[in-house]
Amino acid sequence: MQKIPKPAVKRLAMYYRCLERLREEGKEVTSSKEMAQRLGIKACQIRKDLSYFGEFGKRGIGYNIDNLLERLKEILGVEKAWKVIVIGAGNLGKAIAGHRVIKEQGFEIAALFDIDRRKVGTKVHGVEIKHMDELGDFVKKEGVKIAILCVPKESAQNAADEAEKAGVQGILNFSPRVIKANIPIENVDIAVALKSLTFQIIRRKGKHE
Amino acid sequence: MQKIPKPAVKRLAMYYRCLERLREEGKEVTSSKEMAQRLGIKACQIRKDLSYFGEFGKRGIGYNIDNLLERLKEILGVEKAWKVIVIGAGNLGKAIAGHRVIKEQGFEIAALFDIDRRKVGTKVHGVEIKHMDELGDFVKKEGVKIAILCVPKESAQNAADEAEKAGVQGILNFSPRVIKANIPIENVDIAVALKSLTFQIIRRKGKHE
Repeated sequence: MQKIPKPAVKRLAMYYRCLERLREEGKEVTSSKEMAQRLGIKACQIRKDLSYFGEFGKRGIGYNIDNLLERLKEILGVEKAWKVIVIGAGNLGKAIAGHRVIKEQGFEIAALFDIDRRKVGTKVHGVEIKHMDELGDFVKKEGVKIAILCVPKESAQNAADEAEKAGVQGILNFSPRVIKANIPIENVDIAVALKSLTFQIIRRKGKHE
Repeated sequence: MQKIPKPAVKRLAMYYRCLERLREEGKEVTSSKEMAQRLGIKACQIRKDLSYFGEFGKRGIGYNIDNLLERLKEILGVEKAWKVIVIGAGNLGKAIAGHRVIKEQGFEIAALFDIDRRKVGTKVHGVEIKHMDELGDFVKKEGVKIAILCVPKESAQNAADEAEKAGVQGILNFSPRVIKANIPIENVDIAVALKSLTFQIIRRKGKHE
């Protein structure tokens, strides 16, 4: 299969959720046009992205929603439950551990990890907080694949190193620091998102006022 | 000024933070090469992005960090404090309201809003929870510019509509639903980031095993 650009992967995940919602609404068939309207993405872009995986749609008939969901499940690797840990049991880490969206999408939060021994042993949203010393054993025993980093930026690289050493295969990084690892990393950068927003607000005011 | 593509804006925000860190380390001058190494972005990309705003660097000397930070501050609109509200005082909303990164980057969380009257009047990290009924008046009186949406997906569009009606100028959307508005929207989509990660993990395994 040819190499798929990263923005296309993000869009595939968006298509997946859009299709789930269409199915919830009782629909069986959809079109790139309908998805385009809902997502604010061009229909030709949607057709192009889906074409990376072969043709799914029939001209004039559209896409069978169940079939497309099944294929996207395979492609995105969400057909199995992924075990996830959260490193950093601060406010954000605890909120993420209890976040409905993560569970709904087939991810299981197996444990939280922290270095604060006062937190260790307590539970948040039914998930136990464990000490970082236990990370290596836990990841191996439980088959944890993903670590979500919710530690302060000063500890981010260290935490990523420990996760990688423990055998975690991918990192979702909420800390505002670029981390380096030999495994895939996705960054959720709230400060960057806010700055991107203020940039657009300023431009817009310049245009309209 | 020519139109700047959105991914470039996100990178500018990353450069901003990289430069802040270099300054913290006591440096006065940097180069696109040094920034490239830290950020994992190609040096030529960095030079191209910065060239949208005229030439900052001197060949063989590099960029003066203070000057570049000042220019980026103007460009990104972070030279002034932006008043922000959080809509939805659930776990995630409360964590975001207390998130260090947001304050450090010059954003002020003015209030949280919720429809749950049991929460209204209480404080989280020193920030008061107000009722959605007060949104319009508060936004006008306080000059709130940005709303961070941390509501369940079912309420996301409604909350966005109310924010826009109240006079908010931009929305940071944490809910996993595409919302529509006539003001700029940035999406922080945790489920999409996780799926993008699982996609990469699967591909990688296919390649190496």
